[in-house]
Formats: sequence, C-alpha cells, structure tokens
Amino acid sequence: MSETRAVILLSGGLDSSTVLAWARAEGRSCYALSFDYGQRHRIELRRAAEVAATLEVAEHRIVDIDLRAFGGSALTDDIAVPKDRIDAHGVDAAGEVSIPITYVPARNTIFLSFALAYAEVRAATEIWLGINAIDYSGYPDCRPEYLAAFQTLADLATRAGVEGEGPRFRAPLVELSKVQIVRKARELGVPVERTISCYDPAADGKPCGRCDSCVMREAAIAEA
Amino acid sequence: MSETRAVILLSGGLDSSTVLAWARAEGRSCYALSFDYGQRHRIELRRAAEVAATLEVAEHRIVDIDLRAFGGSALTDDIAVPKDRIDAHGVDAAGEVSIPITYVPARNTIFLSFALAYAEVRAATEIWLGINAIDYSGYPDCRPEYLAAFQTLADLATRAGVEGEGPRFRAPLVELSKVQIVRKARELGVPVERTISCYDPAADGKPCGRCDSCVMREAAIAEA
Repeated sequence: MSETRAVILLSGGLDSSTVLAWARAEGRSCYALSFDYGQRHRIELRRAAEVAATLEVAEHRIVDIDLRAFGGSALTDDIAVPKDRIDAHGVDAAGEVSIPITYVPARNTIFLSFALAYAEVRAATEIWLGINAIDYSGYPDCRPEYLAAFQTLADLATRAGVEGEGPRFRAPLVELSKVQIVRKARELGVPVERTISCYDPAADGKPCGRCDSCVMREAAIAEA
Repeated sequence: MSETRAVILLSGGLDSSTVLAWARAEGRSCYALSFDYGQRHRIELRRAAEVAATLEVAEHRIVDIDLRAFGGSALTDDIAVPKDRIDAHGVDAAGEVSIPITYVPARNTIFLSFALAYAEVRAATEIWLGINAIDYSGYPDCRPEYLAAFQTLADLATRAGVEGEGPRFRAPLVELSKVQIVRKARELGVPVERTISCYDPAADGKPCGRCDSCVMREAAIAEA
C-alpha cells in the first residue's frame, strides 16, 4: 500500500475539521471517526458527516458510546452549560486553571482508545486529532504531555506496537492559537461556516454565542 | 468517606471474579464494571451480574460499546474460534509469542478508559483488573509494562490526576499462574463453578472445553 492511512478524530467542530483538511492536504487516505456519546447536540454528528463528505474521506464511522451511564458533565447531563464567563480559557478568579463543568470524564482517553482500535483494524499508521494546548479551556486531557503518554501506551497496546511501533499521533494544532487555527482553516479550504463548536446549540443548529466555545471561536474569527 | 472505593473490571470469568473477591476481602467498596461489546457470548454478562450480587458490590454497571463497528477479532466477528491448539499460551511453532485471532484490537485500552471515567465520577481511588502476564495467551495489552504506561496516562488524564494523582491500578493476579489463581479463588470463596471463561460457549452457557481459555482453565483446576 503506497498511501498512508490516517484515522482522524472528527467532532464536526472547527478544530477537528481543520485537522482533517490538513491530513488530506498532506495526501493521507483518511478514516474519520466520530462518537455519539449522548451529547446534547446531535447536530454535531450531522455536521461531521457533511465535512467528511466534503473533504472526501475514505470512510467515516460513528461509534455509539455510553458516557451517560456514568454521568458527571454538563455536556452529557442535565446541568446548565456556563454562559458569559469573563475568561473562557479555564482560568478562575484566583488565576488558577480550573477544570470546567463541560469536562467529560476521561473523554479523550476513551476517544483515543477507539481510534487505536480503528487504526489497527484498518492498518492506519497515524492518528490525527485537534487538541490544542493554548486555548485548551482547562481540560486535563488536551495537554501535550497527556498525548505523549498515550503514544507510549499505544506502542505497547497493539499488534503493531508489538511488531514494531504503534500508530503515530499527530496533533498539528497543539501549539496554535485559535486565531491561527481560523487562518489555517481558511487556507486549507475548510467549510468554516458548516463547522459547529457550540456547547449548547439550538435545535436548528444555531450556536448560542455565549458559551466558552462560542466566545473563543467568535473572537478568533473576528481577529483573523 | 472512610471506605476506599474501587472500580473492578468484571467479565464474569474466573480471573476477574477472583479480583473482585480479593478487593472485597481487603474491605473495598466495589463498583463493578462490565461491557457488552457484541461478544458472541452474552452468557458472560449474566454470570458477571450473579458474581457481582454474590460478592455484594456497591454497584454494577454494564456499558454498551460498539467494537463490531470495526471488526477484526474472532470474539466479535464471524471468525471461528481456534480449538485444540497444541499450545494455548500464544507460543507458535517457531517458539515466538504470536497474537491469537481471539485478540480484540485495543480492547483493554478501551475497557480501562471507561474504568477511568467511572472511577472519576464515583470518586473511586483504585481500579482493579484481572490481567495476567504468565498465562496471558499472547495478548499485548495484558503485559505489566502496558499497565504501567496506562498508570502514567491516568495521572495526566483526569481531574484527580491534575489535583494530585489518578486512581491506582491494581492487578493482583499479574504474576500468578492459572493454578495459583484457582487456589486463590477457592480461598476467597469465589463461586468458581458460576464463572465462565470459554471463548465459544453453547447457548445454554456450557463451555466448549476446547478453546485456549477452556484448555488453560481445566488444566489449572485439575492441578489445583
């Protein structure tokens, strides 16, 4: 096989859509992976499917996972999403980085585990994801050291790891600001207006404009 | 809270049932976690529920996961389970450890990820599991170095990890032989006859007696 196959974690948001476009621009054959995890906003999954089709992936799979079984997050439970926060970057009044209520326990670990399984079955040698350390909003599992630890795990966990090395993780947005991501998205031809980043959109898909994610996105688009 | 809470990965097999009994004997309040992953033998889940009730867990959750979406294993696909293998320990004719067809890609990584989420939501400070390095049957994700890598990840991935350390992983069977496990199970009062280890049981729950798992289990029970 001459082409490099890559699994892409695709939420339908701006960041992951940009990552998918980046991988396509580098000639990867892309296997997009989305999750139906009982999130309030299924609109995400429709947008993910649209973006995957537009960017001509080899395959797009949506996996059902059952995070509601445990509860514990505003994104899956009936807890209000915080709006109009003064600082959307997870920094609290004392200047400490606090973990927001929109954090889903171990979500990225679960997502990466499924990506690892998918990569193994499709013989993909890369896994791309849109985590971002600068605008990471206080989530512990978006830090570069977290991803490095998962790479070590992947080299031990899989058939590929036993026989050589596991799939390589690529997080091209990890050091970019939101403004730089918006510029990169436009440069790569991402259908920015079709991506959705809101934590609490209306039933018709309209973003609330006031949650952390909307605030960061709109500020970045305005500046870019 | 004075009691120590522990999440226990419980398949309904001999090993994980022994681990649950061990944790109960050490006074843990146990949160048992099982998975419905499209395995051929749902009988496992009924046995897991029986064992959980017998050993008086605080809670038993069964999470649906969708490994069939990817395929790639005799335990979830329509591939025949190997029977009557000369060596059931994953050692092939050349003396190399080979990964058996019953290996499910990244399965333990997925299971541990959900355990991490469950531990976080229930404020459990330990995660116990029945992996075993000696009789590990060639699975890459049953090795001690694999579990050590997951511990490092858990310390970075979670709210508990950011604020101190993540839940501690305990694998008390990791260095035991199958014979030692059977003896320990009896000592701890595990209902051994109600556990099920077969990869390919009949619809009524009767083990096939010929897959790797049955071969190892029966030999160990006979010797113990």
